[in-house]
Amino acid sequence: MAAGQDNLTAVLYGINDMRLEQRPISEPNDIQVLIQMEVVGICGSDVHYMTHGKIGPFVVEQPMVIGHEAAGTIVKCGKNVKHLQPGDRVAIEPGVPCRLCHLCKSGNYHLCGDLFFCATPPDDGNLSRFYCHDADFCHKLPDNLNLEEGAIMEPLSVGVHACKKAGVKIGDVVLILGAGPIGLVTLLAAKAMGASKICITDILDIKLEMAKKLGADHAIKIEKHLSEDEIVKKVVTLLGEEPNASFDCTGVESCVRIALRSTAKAGKVVLVGLGKFEMNLPLTSALIKEVDIRGVFRYNNDYPTAIEMVRSGRINVKPLITHHYRLEETLQAFETAKTQKGNPVKILIHANPNWRPS
Amino acid sequence: MAAGQDNLTAVLYGINDMRLEQRPISEPNDIQVLIQMEVVGICGSDVHYMTHGKIGPFVVEQPMVIGHEAAGTIVKCGKNVKHLQPGDRVAIEPGVPCRLCHLCKSGNYHLCGDLFFCATPPDDGNLSRFYCHDADFCHKLPDNLNLEEGAIMEPLSVGVHACKKAGVKIGDVVLILGAGPIGLVTLLAAKAMGASKICITDILDIKLEMAKKLGADHAIKIEKHLSEDEIVKKVVTLLGEEPNASFDCTGVESCVRIALRSTAKAGKVVLVGLGKFEMNLPLTSALIKEVDIRGVFRYNNDYPTAIEMVRSGRINVKPLITHHYRLEETLQAFETAKTQKGNPVKILIHANPNWRPS
Amino acid sequence: MAAGQDNLTAVLYGINDMRLEQRPISEPNDIQVLIQMEVVGICGSDVHYMTHGKIGPFVVEQPMVIGHEAAGTIVKCGKNVKHLQPGDRVAIEPGVPCRLCHLCKSGNYHLCGDLFFCATPPDDGNLSRFYCHDADFCHKLPDNLNLEEGAIMEPLSVGVHACKKAGVKIGDVVLILGAGPIGLVTLLAAKAMGASKICITDILDIKLEMAKKLGADHAIKIEKHLSEDEIVKKVVTLLGEEPNASFDCTGVESCVRIALRSTAKAGKVVLVGLGKFEMNLPLTSALIKEVDIRGVFRYNNDYPTAIEMVRSGRINVKPLITHHYRLEETLQAFETAKTQKGNPVKILIHANPNWRPS
Amino acid sequence: MAAGQDNLTAVLYGINDMRLEQRPISEPNDIQVLIQMEVVGICGSDVHYMTHGKIGPFVVEQPMVIGHEAAGTIVKCGKNVKHLQPGDRVAIEPGVPCRLCHLCKSGNYHLCGDLFFCATPPDDGNLSRFYCHDADFCHKLPDNLNLEEGAIMEPLSVGVHACKKAGVKIGDVVLILGAGPIGLVTLLAAKAMGASKICITDILDIKLEMAKKLGADHAIKIEKHLSEDEIVKKVVTLLGEEPNASFDCTGVESCVRIALRSTAKAGKVVLVGLGKFEMNLPLTSALIKEVDIRGVFRYNNDYPTAIEMVRSGRINVKPLITHHYRLEETLQAFETAKTQKGNPVKILIHANPNWRPS
Repeated sequence: MAAGQDNLTAVLYGINDMRLEQRPISEPNDIQVLIQMEVVGICGSDVHYMTHGKIGPFVVEQPMVIGHEAAGTIVKCGKNVKHLQPGDRVAIEPGVPCRLCHLCKSGNYHLCGDLFFCATPPDDGNLSRFYCHDADFCHKLPDNLNLEEGAIMEPLSVGVHACKKAGVKIGDVVLILGAGPIGLVTLLAAKAMGASKICITDILDIKLEMAKKLGADHAIKIEKHLSEDEIVKKVVTLLGEEPNASFDCTGVESCVRIALRSTAKAGKVVLVGLGKFEMNLPLTSALIKEVDIRGVFRYNNDYPTAIEMVRSGRINVKPLITHHYRLEETLQAFETAKTQKGNPVKILIHANPNWRPS
Repeated sequence: MAAGQDNLTAVLYGINDMRLEQRPISEPNDIQVLIQMEVVGICGSDVHYMTHGKIGPFVVEQPMVIGHEAAGTIVKCGKNVKHLQPGDRVAIEPGVPCRLCHLCKSGNYHLCGDLFFCATPPDDGNLSRFYCHDADFCHKLPDNLNLEEGAIMEPLSVGVHACKKAGVKIGDVVLILGAGPIGLVTLLAAKAMGASKICITDILDIKLEMAKKLGADHAIKIEKHLSEDEIVKKVVTLLGEEPNASFDCTGVESCVRIALRSTAKAGKVVLVGLGKFEMNLPLTSALIKEVDIRGVFRYNNDYPTAIEMVRSGRINVKPLITHHYRLEETLQAFETAKTQKGNPVKILIHANPNWRPS
Repeated sequence: MAAGQDNLTAVLYGINDMRLEQRPISEPNDIQVLIQMEVVGICGSDVHYMTHGKIGPFVVEQPMVIGHEAAGTIVKCGKNVKHLQPGDRVAIEPGVPCRLCHLCKSGNYHLCGDLFFCATPPDDGNLSRFYCHDADFCHKLPDNLNLEEGAIMEPLSVGVHACKKAGVKIGDVVLILGAGPIGLVTLLAAKAMGASKICITDILDIKLEMAKKLGADHAIKIEKHLSEDEIVKKVVTLLGEEPNASFDCTGVESCVRIALRSTAKAGKVVLVGLGKFEMNLPLTSALIKEVDIRGVFRYNNDYPTAIEMVRSGRINVKPLITHHYRLEETLQAFETAKTQKGNPVKILIHANPNWRPS
Repeated sequence: MAAGQDNLTAVLYGINDMRLEQRPISEPNDIQVLIQMEVVGICGSDVHYMTHGKIGPFVVEQPMVIGHEAAGTIVKCGKNVKHLQPGDRVAIEPGVPCRLCHLCKSGNYHLCGDLFFCATPPDDGNLSRFYCHDADFCHKLPDNLNLEEGAIMEPLSVGVHACKKAGVKIGDVVLILGAGPIGLVTLLAAKAMGASKICITDILDIKLEMAKKLGADHAIKIEKHLSEDEIVKKVVTLLGEEPNASFDCTGVESCVRIALRSTAKAGKVVLVGLGKFEMNLPLTSALIKEVDIRGVFRYNNDYPTAIEMVRSGRINVKPLITHHYRLEETLQAFETAKTQKGNPVKILIHANPNWRPS
């Protein structure tokens, strides 16, 4: 790239200190591609880094480029890159592992102890004009997916991973706790994989409305006056039986409790939401039913499945996209994400200066 | 059987009200066998029913024959029984399912909602001279297993089931919380299935000694002054790495916590011990490592494996057997079980009047 | 039932000797139901028994009631039957196992060595007015499935079982050899379970047309002049890659060969069609790719999945139904099945005298 | 290394044209190690390349260093290598994959289409004084394994992979066809993983003797006058039941046939031996029993298991080692391998000039 070319980049300097600045454009190494960034979604974790400066052990100690739910167009390929060429539109899987450890070799690369992950400190993200990434973690988009859908592949892959963990199959009866973005992508993935009945819960009507629009069969509004027993009973009554797969997409103790208590014998409870570290739980309730409790940490070989779900028309992710901003408007975009004004689901930032609202 | 034949039977009438009385001898139906009972072990649950009159939802509301860890000799076979004949020595798997429900048909008969289970109210157990049981749940003992070992197949099957749940294989690094009878059978099963290093914990030195004798590589005495962090650190230091399979055999919150925190990425925590219903747990710790948490409810197609472990000489269960009583001494046997005087591991009751101490 | 009530029954007395005769109506035992038979499909195996008097080791040595692809209406329930009641419409799973052996207990009841199976000698089938069957192998039809679809659940379950054996999931690339009824139900099941691209082969254009109508993406007409190499190449060219799951639904050597040679590394070849016992095969071709070769013998816990596929609208089995006959016209129905005149896919026989063509 | 240092290397120039010559010593890259080669075993494939110049599609078109069953001592580490240091003794896993493709990412690195593999044309092997290899494919030997055992880890890993493919577990009944080196390592691995009864076949008494010495329970000498039916019957009679896992370690049609016909319902036939491409097979026999047929191509994450089997004392591989040569005697070593004079099992070549026979 020509020196001095525009590479406006969103950099988080510290708590509530996001800055837009020019950064040099990197050169791809032999197995990388240089990408014209197109669409970058805002994730709850991005907002959390902005407002708290850290998530668990991950602390923003030096300026960090934000952004990891992204799609772009290939500009240049490293010399060993064979499956991509300039002009290809790709969804960018943001975690690149060491490729050497036993976890990488056994198909668990997402648990690699030496993982690079966009916008997890100290690794830079990709909310910028240009960005280099390992080519094998760039997934070419089929013709019938646009770049906005491409950016959604990141959160959708979380839902896919969760449903694979539960082994969702045709006829499954599903409970989803929480109708935020992760609850919704889990809902979409569960439907695509064959769930016959889905009940979802949330504390907000507007979120439950969206869930129903996306295909939830039953919605339960969690209200203060409802006891745990009442909610468990309602889940089973609405579904007509105990769910055989439950997904906590909240990280909230009361929701995990409902999942453990509602799930059928030999069923699965999948923990997707990250929340309070310590929880008071009726673990015995799961034990005696031999309900497996499985955690979800991001995704692993799930992008191809997510892309195929949309390509084949099994699901439609477009209703998730509620807000659009330009890269220059990154601070407003984060403001919307923080305040939740306008009830955003997914907020997308358009990084290509040629982008025009449709 | 001749009417009036001796069928002395141990019947629990209520809390601390165990009585020995004569009961009629049943006739086996077409798929059953009549068994001369030989050896019946005392389980913690038997003692709990005696001292508390209930376990969770299972309440002793009418007189119940006690006993479910049993072996005997076939006396008579129902007309459709083909794989057994009088004189065969068998280990008796105490749970008989409905054979009709979807759990029975999919290989999860132990979770059947309509399960008969010896000495779980209201179902009678088999601490008596004679007893009828479905023949397909009577497992013929190989020549080199004696009837005492036959009775041990019941608790050993719990250990086998736990290790199958964890998928223990050659090279696994194992942590076992609790060195009571269930911790010890889990230890034996884990060794037989290939564990390369096993660390076990308990609060009593004498139990840890037994565990070492049975093959534990490392033992940690849990003492008041040790913090959770210190114990987790000690586990990892002794094993040289994080365990990839951890078994809680206590049902105690502090032990489940250590299991969740110690276990390696993509590992398994298996819950074998039943304890307090509510526990305060660092669930997130397991989630982000994608550690699966799996419950164990009894066993399922595990007797053949347990028997083969002993037949092949992979493990020796004899050191577990510490005390012997006659059926007539059932009350003394339970007294020993209650007081733990003489540090019993497995207490066996001999139901055949011809039994003589060796 | 009143003595002398009409129970017209189709009985195969020997080669090409099918007779309609009155038979007594049985009484259901405690776990059975009496069924007013409604719809019975003709299977290739039925025709084969009629024309050859045997299939492999199964020989028609005494008069045998024909029919095993069936649906009916419950008339009467045995006293222990809880999940059904008179009036319920059910799909009848024709194989009832011993419930006692290790295969039954481990979730492989279909491989039970002591299996009753309708219309497999010496067991009677259910092409009659009334028939008794174990209630747990009668699957209640949802409101939106009619009885004709109910009868199709039998062959569809074969397709479901085959796709489960292959582990078909979203994004799979599938090759199906043979577009007869079993090829078509495998096609439908594969689509429902997520196949993204399906290529099917046959020697007849009319069958390929039906396959395309049901959703095949690519069809290859196998013609004499095409070499094996050319067909393998065509499969890969049309699909754009090697299939990761291939299904032989022919039992023909040349088709099994194409499956073994076409399938991708770490893929699956599932053998559904039964044909010549001896085949000349390039087994090494599968070995070095670690392609698993898996056989399908009927089905196992697959009816609920098959029913749900239709209930949920994932697939439509109605186009498979091409011909209708009354029970009184059974001989004509078999004549059509034998001659294939009118290009039948599924021929249904209506056993209820009240049936009227729609 | 100093220029001109001794790096005697065995190079195959063409059919029966093996030469010993000096080659320059390479420098390890950042993730590699330089290894003082110690022990290199001769594999059947090495001999085949020497005598035929090719195996299937792999043709020796240019001089190729031979050797891939190897162990050595680390001399120098690339700068990113952390788990090894000079002086460490390692078993060398000879296949290094691309680390980028979907097979590598999903835990199937051994099927990678871009695999480097020692002494498979055109890739050089390691029968030389010094050799560089990717550090993550060098497995550190425990103190109680010597370097000769280290070299045996390569063939043993094939046996381990085969047994993992079959899912061998405690109580399994195993049939092994062929008592050559691969049959023997499969036998050892099957015993370590829990097989309770093993029957092995061969055409030579001396091989069956070795198999019995290593733990086979039953041995069948395949003789011309025995029909296939007789052999199948003998297998089942000796084992007392049908094997649930059968391993063909011959690549010979008649052996694969016996495996397919003998194996129990729901069992596994694992194809380890590579032989004739085309075979006449009773595939239907496996199909109707739902016997899975699985191919084994080398190994995949199996070295750690193989090493642990020996470290823990579960198996003893020393009896496999029958002949020793120095690197300078490579041609004699291959002569012995070709002629089979002295009935070799494993022939080891010692590449360190300081080696002295013990």
